[in-house]
Amino acid sequence: MSASPTMAFDPIGYVRCEVPDDAIARQRRTLRATVEVLPQYAAGLDGIEAYSHLIVVFWMHRATPSRELHCHPRGDQALEPVGVFAARGRNHPNPLGLAVVELLERRDNRLEVRKLDAFDGTPVIDIKPYDHYDVVHDPRVPEWFRKRALSAR
Amino acid sequence: MSASPTMAFDPIGYVRCEVPDDAIARQRRTLRATVEVLPQYAAGLDGIEAYSHLIVVFWMHRATPSRELHCHPRGDQALEPVGVFAARGRNHPNPLGLAVVELLERRDNRLEVRKLDAFDGTPVIDIKPYDHYDVVHDPRVPEWFRKRALSAR
Repeated sequence: MSASPTMAFDPIGYVRCEVPDDAIARQRRTLRATVEVLPQYAAGLDGIEAYSHLIVVFWMHRATPSRELHCHPRGDQALEPVGVFAARGRNHPNPLGLAVVELLERRDNRLEVRKLDAFDGTPVIDIKPYDHYDVVHDPRVPEWFRKRALSAR
Repeated sequence: MSASPTMAFDPIGYVRCEVPDDAIARQRRTLRATVEVLPQYAAGLDGIEAYSHLIVVFWMHRATPSRELHCHPRGDQALEPVGVFAARGRNHPNPLGLAVVELLERRDNRLEVRKLDAFDGTPVIDIKPYDHYDVVHDPRVPEWFRKRALSAR
């Protein structure tokens, strides 16, 4: 594969969130937000209420482009740097965000969700229903993740 | 948000898979494939071995563009049509693929993985480590999914 096509996508909707940007990461577990799908795609949501969870893929439109390939996980200087693909940071070559969210309600073209850690106004690229193929019951993660994230749950 | 920016991404790598296209869905559970990351991004994989699973986001470059907003889940005419966002089909407005895969081995810029249901040559947009925030222990899914997918597991 020698060709290197550029892939172009248009938003299918936008994130609406009343929580200020700098409070979003901290409030992630309880955060409520709305995914407002563009009216022309609203019919594509029919039947989505049958799922309890969704995967929302979005464009981290405010991420500063970076060519750095290593980072401290979660920006914590106390942690050893790792490759950007070994962390869920905002500095991947393609600034895609991805969140597993809880679907609370659908109203026409609006999805009320919990745990979407995206800024207000974030363009949404795709929405997928979360199913049993997405479940890994006991994933292996680095020691630092296990210590921090799991102790906070 | 009145602006409708087009988002442009370049591939970070490509899927290599020896299984013929028409056998991929059927063999999904045991399917082995390679994600060949472009050499300039190889360092971004450092530390990824600490994770047992990854989320691979790819461009379904052979999907036929469709403006249809409803589909039969899994193409099965016996199932009631649903909105495209309520199914994991190949006909979303933005043809993104997303798979939770098992990481078997990293060798330099190559990731050997299991359960990546993507055709040989598929451009990869992003790779994210799978962690406990991605786990939903008993997601609600439609009745048809529960009957089929779960009975086959």
